[in-house]
Amino acid sequence: ALHRLYRNMANSHYEYVKKFEISDPCLLNCWPVVRIDGKNFHKFSKLHKFKKPNDDRALNLMTKSAESVMNMCHDIVVSYGQSDEYSFVFKKSTATYNRRASKLSSVVVSQFSSAYVFHWKDFFPDQELLYPPAFDSRVILYPSDKNMRDYLSWRQVDCHINNLYNTCFWSLVHSGMTPFTAQDELKGTLASDKNEILFSKFGINYNNLPQLYRKGTVLIREKADVNSSGNDDEEPISEAMDADLNDSKKRKLRKPITALNTDVIGDEFWKKHPHVLNTDR
Amino acid sequence: ALHRLYRNMANSHYEYVKKFEISDPCLLNCWPVVRIDGKNFHKFSKLHKFKKPNDDRALNLMTKSAESVMNMCHDIVVSYGQSDEYSFVFKKSTATYNRRASKLSSVVVSQFSSAYVFHWKDFFPDQELLYPPAFDSRVILYPSDKNMRDYLSWRQVDCHINNLYNTCFWSLVHSGMTPFTAQDELKGTLASDKNEILFSKFGINYNNLPQLYRKGTVLIREKADVNSSGNDDEEPISEAMDADLNDSKKRKLRKPITALNTDVIGDEFWKKHPHVLNTDR
Amino acid sequence: ALHRLYRNMANSHYEYVKKFEISDPCLLNCWPVVRIDGKNFHKFSKLHKFKKPNDDRALNLMTKSAESVMNMCHDIVVSYGQSDEYSFVFKKSTATYNRRASKLSSVVVSQFSSAYVFHWKDFFPDQELLYPPAFDSRVILYPSDKNMRDYLSWRQVDCHINNLYNTCFWSLVHSGMTPFTAQDELKGTLASDKNEILFSKFGINYNNLPQLYRKGTVLIREKADVNSSGNDDEEPISEAMDADLNDSKKRKLRKPITALNTDVIGDEFWKKHPHVLNTDR
Amino acid sequence: ALHRLYRNMANSHYEYVKKFEISDPCLLNCWPVVRIDGKNFHKFSKLHKFKKPNDDRALNLMTKSAESVMNMCHDIVVSYGQSDEYSFVFKKSTATYNRRASKLSSVVVSQFSSAYVFHWKDFFPDQELLYPPAFDSRVILYPSDKNMRDYLSWRQVDCHINNLYNTCFWSLVHSGMTPFTAQDELKGTLASDKNEILFSKFGINYNNLPQLYRKGTVLIREKADVNSSGNDDEEPISEAMDADLNDSKKRKLRKPITALNTDVIGDEFWKKHPHVLNTDR
Repeated sequence: ALHRLYRNMANSHYEYVKKFEISDPCLLNCWPVVRIDGKNFHKFSKLHKFKKPNDDRALNLMTKSAESVMNMCHDIVVSYGQSDEYSFVFKKSTATYNRRASKLSSVVVSQFSSAYVFHWKDFFPDQELLYPPAFDSRVILYPSDKNMRDYLSWRQVDCHINNLYNTCFWSLVHSGMTPFTAQDELKGTLASDKNEILFSKFGINYNNLPQLYRKGTVLIREKADVNSSGNDDEEPISEAMDADLNDSKKRKLRKPITALNTDVIGDEFWKKHPHVLNTDR
Repeated sequence: ALHRLYRNMANSHYEYVKKFEISDPCLLNCWPVVRIDGKNFHKFSKLHKFKKPNDDRALNLMTKSAESVMNMCHDIVVSYGQSDEYSFVFKKSTATYNRRASKLSSVVVSQFSSAYVFHWKDFFPDQELLYPPAFDSRVILYPSDKNMRDYLSWRQVDCHINNLYNTCFWSLVHSGMTPFTAQDELKGTLASDKNEILFSKFGINYNNLPQLYRKGTVLIREKADVNSSGNDDEEPISEAMDADLNDSKKRKLRKPITALNTDVIGDEFWKKHPHVLNTDR
Repeated sequence: ALHRLYRNMANSHYEYVKKFEISDPCLLNCWPVVRIDGKNFHKFSKLHKFKKPNDDRALNLMTKSAESVMNMCHDIVVSYGQSDEYSFVFKKSTATYNRRASKLSSVVVSQFSSAYVFHWKDFFPDQELLYPPAFDSRVILYPSDKNMRDYLSWRQVDCHINNLYNTCFWSLVHSGMTPFTAQDELKGTLASDKNEILFSKFGINYNNLPQLYRKGTVLIREKADVNSSGNDDEEPISEAMDADLNDSKKRKLRKPITALNTDVIGDEFWKKHPHVLNTDR
Repeated sequence: ALHRLYRNMANSHYEYVKKFEISDPCLLNCWPVVRIDGKNFHKFSKLHKFKKPNDDRALNLMTKSAESVMNMCHDIVVSYGQSDEYSFVFKKSTATYNRRASKLSSVVVSQFSSAYVFHWKDFFPDQELLYPPAFDSRVILYPSDKNMRDYLSWRQVDCHINNLYNTCFWSLVHSGMTPFTAQDELKGTLASDKNEILFSKFGINYNNLPQLYRKGTVLIREKADVNSSGNDDEEPISEAMDADLNDSKKRKLRKPITALNTDVIGDEFWKKHPHVLNTDR
């Protein structure tokens, strides 16, 4: 909003329509999670010649865009992405936008989309962006730490299931099978069957594939407040939600973001990074 | 979402977290309006050297992005934009996304943001985009045609009030006054006072200024179904919500979008374009 | 609430829990409808020996209780009841309880339940009330007059369908058939079949049955403000929502409630009582 | 609802209005709390000559009505009442009414109101009920055990504050002071001041007053499943939510309800009755 200063001026006759807006605050003491998800990315990835089953450029662009979101919303304590989706976990006690769900959801998906297009050329130097893609977003609330961790586990198991399937499917297709036959071949197979197919037919040991594909990407902030030196995101800090702080101070406060391709289902990750759950203390 | 085919696979242990999602359908027989609004655009416009009080490039980029949204969501019957905001009115009976408010809101703001960055260089050939901007969005429901028209009138009166003020303010500043003194000079002035200042001090007849500045921009679809020939938006139709239709059929169905800088407060506009209100018949 | 005066006293440590309450205002310019519905009334009616298919005492007690609700909430413009349910239509522009849905819903169902037990002995002098019954309630919003009228039509058609079925069912049962056989006999029959059964087997012309059974009961207020003299409800006016008015003034303002067993589906009723729809003018 | 069997019959034309109903499920893994509150009980208590500051008959009737609610909803694990209000805490994992907030709220307040009138004569044998009273109700969700306990503490501190004030106020009034002067006398006094007034002027040691007045009433269920013998509520078990169980089985399952006038702020109560928090295990 550019011109909010003059709102005290006369606009009385129609201003009653403002009262139709209904507030949608997130319940207190719950973890607000915003998940964004690519719209029609099946077609988008085809048209832009994404490598199958995984395209590092696309995955890294997703993560770059997620970092842009985290640089804007300092109350996001952990993010998790895979394929064409990313989840952003706000701290339980966040007061960002007075916890209004529509604000949290829209600003996250807008920044993500905007950054995706902005950074495209850095990740796809040889592939022009043909049209601007869209993502949807939603807010989900998790009352307990366990619920929130289980949410992330759910997404990571989903990553594994999809990746195992896709690795098989595209190996078959790349070896000459039609998509239809490949799909049929995999129908009803268990995880162990797929591992076996990969190993026996293609010599692929699934567990040796990059963790980026098998685990997805977790973004956390470093615990300590560190001066974020050179590897700074190009977004001016002024875009951050704490717009009242002056730039140099904010730059000092900003905690660098770390991308990890690691398991978040077990306890190890959470023991190693206890501040993710304990941001309120 | 890329890989929804395999969802029947096992992800049972954590899948319970899906049940925490709460549906948010728009009440039936109401006009859903999605309004997007620039985040921190005061700074964004300054950093990107927007001309003050109005920058045609910026306004036209907003409208280009709005067209991209309308090309995606065929149930948007009219849009209205001014400054750094745009409102999108879905038809009363829309079933897009089962009327889920979070979906409507997020897809609109995502497509808008994405298109804004995508088209930037066409409107600002001499000004690099320095960072990806964000917009917020919200859904408001209007039960009656009158409420919905009053909403658009409210935004257009807002455009007028802001533009009159800004035109005065920037004329004073461009003539050498400090922003602080200019603000002080205008404090408490009525519309008539501002018209007088513009005319006596700067020889500006406010009513002769471009309608683009004074009225904002209305986007409607042509009534008749016309084959949208050359001046097609570059977004592939496949991005449209009716993704099941094949491309050529959709291209035929697509109604060209017209941008107007006209009054929407009086009856004339609505009499001239009755199909905007009567899309359900 | 008895003691709200002293709330400024210290209760600070735990008072944060108040912030977990979430407001639930009804969308403006919509008709709020509260429908209450008997809980486990199949058993309740059996235990209290309700006459089947219709018990005038029970129906009249329902209507008496509905009148008690209307005497409390002056913004209810029309009510409709049948069987063990009653619907209360608040005027579109009501500001009662700031349109908070939970307040409207709870106060209506509480007053109804309370009045039902209170007046029981007047309608069932020979049948003791064996236990306190419960009703549920919900709020539904209707944006247009047509939607609201269609809602009432829906309930009245429901009344007709149920009553025709029940009249057949109980005639068969009273004539010696087992409930199970009677149910079987009626399975798949059309309205015309049921009319035929009633006429040929029992000499009953369905259309000659009391309108109370076939149409249910509509409650409206008289148009003119009349001094409600003798036939006053025993509820002290002080229970009314406009508790700030003094009693005698309120008594003067109170419009007498009229119960009608009439069709609300056609236009006649609405033409005859135009003030029901036009309460805001 | 009496006649839901025949719903498959034709009511198609108007049935679309059902789709305007919006579901309102309580977020999972939160404690749903329903609080009911007397409407205009200042007047009600005056008219029915309630003893001031506390009327045992009225308080016991409230508790009797709350027991009626708990006998109906077996998922209520603890209730707390004081003055003209009562709070009902459903277990975190309750699936009663699919956790629909409007159902939980309405059935509780309806049963409470109905029972209040039903049992009036047993508690007020010498005071006729002059009109049916109403209560409002609302649902509040608490994500953590601590939040829920803090809610109950908030209500109990409220009880103490109000009772201390009221005891002073009515002692002054009963000793001949006008209400206005008494109010003025107490303005700005601290708890210690009020204790002092009570002791020095009236020889009352506040801490010796009945716990019923100072602590309010907590209702819990006995831990063990016990055959609820003689002190059974008169409500037939059939009114219970688990209406599918047969009566004798239910009677066996029913856990007797115990009323306590005890502190719920400290840990002692919760240590003594751990099953209240652990009902899900």
